[in-house]
Order: sequence, then C-alpha cells, then structure tokens
Amino acid sequence: MALSGAGLEGIIAAESSICWIDGDAGILSYQGFNIHTLAENATFEEVIFLLWNGRLPKAAELAGLKADLAANRGIPDAVTAFLASVKDATPMDVLRTAVSMLALHDPESRDNSVAASERKAVRLMSQTSTIVTSFDRLRKGQDVVQPDPSLGFAANFLYTLTGKRPDAVMEKVFDIALTLHADHELNASTFASRVTAATLSDIHSAVTSGIGALKGPLHGGANEDVIRMLLEAGGNKESALEMVKNRLANKIKVPGFGHRVYKTLDPRAIHLRRMSEELGKSTGHENLYEASSAIEQFIKEAKNLNANVDFYSASAYYSLGIPIDLFTPIFAVSRMSGWTAHVLEQYRNNRLIRPRADYTGLPVGQAWVPLEQR
Amino acid sequence: MALSGAGLEGIIAAESSICWIDGDAGILSYQGFNIHTLAENATFEEVIFLLWNGRLPKAAELAGLKADLAANRGIPDAVTAFLASVKDATPMDVLRTAVSMLALHDPESRDNSVAASERKAVRLMSQTSTIVTSFDRLRKGQDVVQPDPSLGFAANFLYTLTGKRPDAVMEKVFDIALTLHADHELNASTFASRVTAATLSDIHSAVTSGIGALKGPLHGGANEDVIRMLLEAGGNKESALEMVKNRLANKIKVPGFGHRVYKTLDPRAIHLRRMSEELGKSTGHENLYEASSAIEQFIKEAKNLNANVDFYSASAYYSLGIPIDLFTPIFAVSRMSGWTAHVLEQYRNNRLIRPRADYTGLPVGQAWVPLEQR
Repeated sequence: MALSGAGLEGIIAAESSICWIDGDAGILSYQGFNIHTLAENATFEEVIFLLWNGRLPKAAELAGLKADLAANRGIPDAVTAFLASVKDATPMDVLRTAVSMLALHDPESRDNSVAASERKAVRLMSQTSTIVTSFDRLRKGQDVVQPDPSLGFAANFLYTLTGKRPDAVMEKVFDIALTLHADHELNASTFASRVTAATLSDIHSAVTSGIGALKGPLHGGANEDVIRMLLEAGGNKESALEMVKNRLANKIKVPGFGHRVYKTLDPRAIHLRRMSEELGKSTGHENLYEASSAIEQFIKEAKNLNANVDFYSASAYYSLGIPIDLFTPIFAVSRMSGWTAHVLEQYRNNRLIRPRADYTGLPVGQAWVPLEQR
Repeated sequence: MALSGAGLEGIIAAESSICWIDGDAGILSYQGFNIHTLAENATFEEVIFLLWNGRLPKAAELAGLKADLAANRGIPDAVTAFLASVKDATPMDVLRTAVSMLALHDPESRDNSVAASERKAVRLMSQTSTIVTSFDRLRKGQDVVQPDPSLGFAANFLYTLTGKRPDAVMEKVFDIALTLHADHELNASTFASRVTAATLSDIHSAVTSGIGALKGPLHGGANEDVIRMLLEAGGNKESALEMVKNRLANKIKVPGFGHRVYKTLDPRAIHLRRMSEELGKSTGHENLYEASSAIEQFIKEAKNLNANVDFYSASAYYSLGIPIDLFTPIFAVSRMSGWTAHVLEQYRNNRLIRPRADYTGLPVGQAWVPLEQR
C-alpha cells in the first residue's frame, strides 16, 4: 500500500481536462485558457460553457446557454417558503439545505443519466443564484425581486440581490469575480463533489457535498474572515498594520495569505487587487483597499507569504455592497460551474474514489469484557 | 508529484484508529475489536460508544449514552412538516435534505468546537432514526409513532417504523445488522464526510455529504438492487439461478458480489447470511434465503466472487418487513455512527484533504478567439 502524506498532498486522485494549476509559476487555466485571458475577455456564461464543454461556445451556442440559464432562474415555491422560514440561520446552512431540496422538485429527479445531469447542471447554476439573493431579501423583510431575463448572469444576481440594476463597472467587476472563482482543480469542495458523484449518486447530492465543504473556514470561509479583520482594524492603513503585527506577535493567523498549491502569487489575486482598488475609488471604500495593500506588503516582507484569492475579494465584495455573510454563498454561486463540470466529467469516466487509512488503533483481536467487569 | 491509481485505490488518505480491514484475510475490526466479537456480544449502543471513544463503555457510561440517545429522539416541527410535504420523493433525497435542515435548528448551530460536535453527534444518531421512520409513516398516511424511551436504539427504530414492539429475535437481528454496517474505514461516504470536515466545516455538513455519497448505486444502493433481483426472479431457487445465468450471459452485473477491499469473503456476510436464514424461517420468507444461497454458490463457482454485505442484508431486511426503498436510509442510520466517529477524529487532528488531478486537457495558453470568429 502506498503511503501518502497527510491530506493527500501531491497525490493524483483523478484525471481531468478542466483545470491546470502550476503552483510554482503561479499559472491557473481552465480547459487550456489562462485565467488572465479569460478575466480579460470572457463573460461568466462563456466560462460556464468552456468548463462544461472544453471549448469556447459559438455565437448560437452562447445565445442558447444564456437563454437556458435565464429560463431556469425560478425556484420551487416550497424552496422559497423554506428560505422565508429560516431568516436567522447561517447562509451556508440554508444554501446547502435549499440546494439539496431542489433535487426533490427537479423535473428529472429520478433520471441520473449524464444527459439529464447536464440539464440539471443548467438549472443548478441559475437556481443557486436565486436561492442566495432570495434568502437575503427575505431575511431583510424585503420582497423577492423577480429575475430579469434581459440581464446576464452577473447583472441579474446583483439586480435580484439589491433591486437595482448595476452599472456597467459593477456588472463587469462581479462578472470577472465569478470567472476567477469558477474552478480550481481538486480543491476540497470539488473533491467532495467528485467523491460523492463517484458512487454514481446524483448531481444534487454531489454539489450539496461541495457546498458543505466550501462552508469550512479553511476553504470558502476565509474572505469573510479577511473583511472582519479589516473592519475590526478600523479599515485604515495604520490601524490595520498594527492589528496584523499584534496577530503575528500572538501567533494568530492572518486570513487571506498562503495556499496549499500556490508557492508564489495567486494569479487570481492580481485581478481582485485591481478590482478592489477600482471599486474602492468609485464607491468610497478606498481606505479598505489601502489597508489591504499595506497588509499584503507587510506579510510578504515579514513572512514571505502571498495574498490569495480570498484576500482582495473581501474588500471588492464589500465595496459592491454585498453583505459579509454572503461572501461564501457567492463563492458557491460561482464554483457551482466548476463543481458541475467536475461531476459531469466524473460520470463520463467513473471509478469509485475509495482510499485507505493508516491504522493507528489498538491491536486487532481485543477480547470482549462483560459490562460488569469493565 | 506521486501518481496514484485511479480512484485512490490503495492510497492512504488519513490516519485512523477506528477501523482495521484486512481485505485478503477477510478481517474487519472496530477500534481493535473483531466484528465477530462485536456481532456476538455488543449492543449497537456499545458499538457507538466504542467507535467514538476507542474503548468499551463502563456500565454508567453506557447507561448515560443510552439515556442521552433516548432523550434526543425528537426532531424539530419544521423537519416533520418537511417530511410530510414530500411523500413521493426518493427517501435518500429526503434524508439528505432533512439532516441538512437539522443544522438550522440545532441548539449549538454556530458552535463547531469538538465538544459541541460530540453533542451534535448524539443528536444526529437519534434524529436520523426518527427522520427515517417518521417519513415512512407520513408517506403512508399514518401517524408518526412517538419514540419509547424504554426501548433501545434497534427496538425503538422498529417500533417507530411499524407501530409494533418487535419480538426479541427481530430486535436482536436488527441490532446486529446496525453493528455490522456501522463503519468500514474510508469507504466513499465516510471519505466524503472527512473531506468535508477537513475544511473545518460543521458536522451536519460532513454527514450530509456522507448521505449524498451513500445514495449512489455503487455504494449504499446495492442491497436494494439485490432484493429487486430476487423478487423479480420470483424468489425461488430455480428461477433465481436462471435469471443470474441470463445476466451473466448478457454481461449484466449481479448486485451484491465483490468488493473493492475484500478479496475473500466479506466477514459481515457470514452474520447476515445466518440472520437471513433464521428470519426467513421465522417469517415465512425461507424461499428468499434459499434463492440467495443458490445464487451465492453459483457466482462463487462461475466467477469466483464472494457475497458482500449487501447480498444477505437484502433478504434479512425484507424478512423484517422493511420497505425496500428504506434499505439505504437504514444503512445511513447505522453508518451515522461511523461517519460521526470519523468526523470527530478528523477534527481532533485536522489537515485539509486536497489531492491533485492528472491534467488531460488542451495545452495551456490557448489563444482567445472573438465570438464572431469561432
């Protein structure tokens, strides 16, 4: 039996065409397209198509996918009623339960063929967005905003969240943020999705596992920790630096730095830093960007750690007016594209994922001791 | 980067004291106790304690756990209302959603410390049982049966399912079945639970991933396939043999045989075979046992494959009067003990589980092609 390092570090668990990461060189690509190429050129809908199909869509295909996504934004009344009933709950608990519940109402609930799963993936993309925005409206006592089929994925999300149509800059920034978070190879949530799918369980089960894993503070929860740190520090450069120095002195983790895979700058951080700066200027949150920038520089010098995807998405999302506890659910809205792509890829060439454990327990063959003699 | 076989076969993913399997010798043990020792001596409650704590409970500890389990059988009204609203749904979809929903109502919902997670594990054990039996009653238009605190785990399950207190043989057989299914090292559902827990997500998220993975026909779904095959064959020896021969001739899989880990007889099958025979005689389903036995012998000779845990649990559960589509949910009721034990072990010595993929996609650096030129 091969002995791996703890946590499967560096171990190959599946073949995949979806994502390539070179952690030493700081390269991330989806289906062969460098993340920088995509951030500069693609819409999120093109990225969804690319992740699912391994190539860019032709004009008619893109129009078809956009129409399909727009047509599937509705969620069952039972799910809306559930969202309305749990206003004080943790959003990721709500999202996990609501997405699991979608399976019960899906028109192809008992058909787990690859073709049906592809159609379910379209519905999951759109419905996850609606769940997140509807939950936020309902918990604030606001009416749910009906989706606008004339809006693309990013703009419709912001519109149904805030009730206002976003301006072009906000739409573009959010669209790029969705692209940057769409996939990241066998990260823990995608891996949980693939392990689930590999028993040939259904796609709703698989992405529900993904949501559960993303909830953890070592995964999707980190950008919430970043903004809480920035706000706690008062959001200015000097107080932020002081807080970070205190944290280091007391061996408290500074969130948003370092990565299991990247040993250099996370390529996504470059775009998010620029967006944080732009949005900071246009929305009056420049102090958050400046505090972030000062912390980044300090941690680089003091610990030789680089900012990761979570560090600048925190201030960018905050500047967009997104509630802090929706940062991780929004990560899920984007990563749903990667989860579904990986699940479909797993189905097409499946093998059960079943590793072994290194046994550390008592010698086997312990003798039974009757209750009264223990 | 180390290259593993597909599906992580033979790869170590975690240290664990919980379960030892020797697939060549056909040995299974929990915390050092051979499964035969436990099947002959332990109650399921003792097994739960053993899995969680690594030793047998003293008399007062066992009494305390039994009292705790009995006191936590209630489920929130919202969960009961949900169960009543989805009568025609797939039971595993319902169970996955209902267990996810429990998190929203848990009194320690936002406390994910190990100590709080240990208390949640007790609630999850009892509430999962109540969800399964309540759902079955409600979908049949029957009233939910209130749990009986004087009954142990196995007897209370059968009582709340059927409304009748089971006789001593039924209770004992079901108790042993729960013990036999309680854990199996890093099987796919337990592994999905640990991958989820390793992001430091909460225990409800982790076991929800486990339920989703168990649903797959390559994992928990197999014993349902076995009983459907036996019933389709008419449940007698000759017709069952004919069906199996036809299946082999047409290269259709015969469910309930072979195992990723066991290369010899699954030690759990020995007990389930005996229970299937005993129950078959006492409940008038002897023909199912005889058909199963004939198939086992034939497949052993024709394919050199051994019966696994699913093969005889099918006829045993059927003889107990359990609805076929509850076989996998009952597997979950039992495996919840293993899932929670593994999640708690993961929390106590955590490392993110994050493997890599073998990239099979396009060369990185694909050039962007404008939409109109594709």
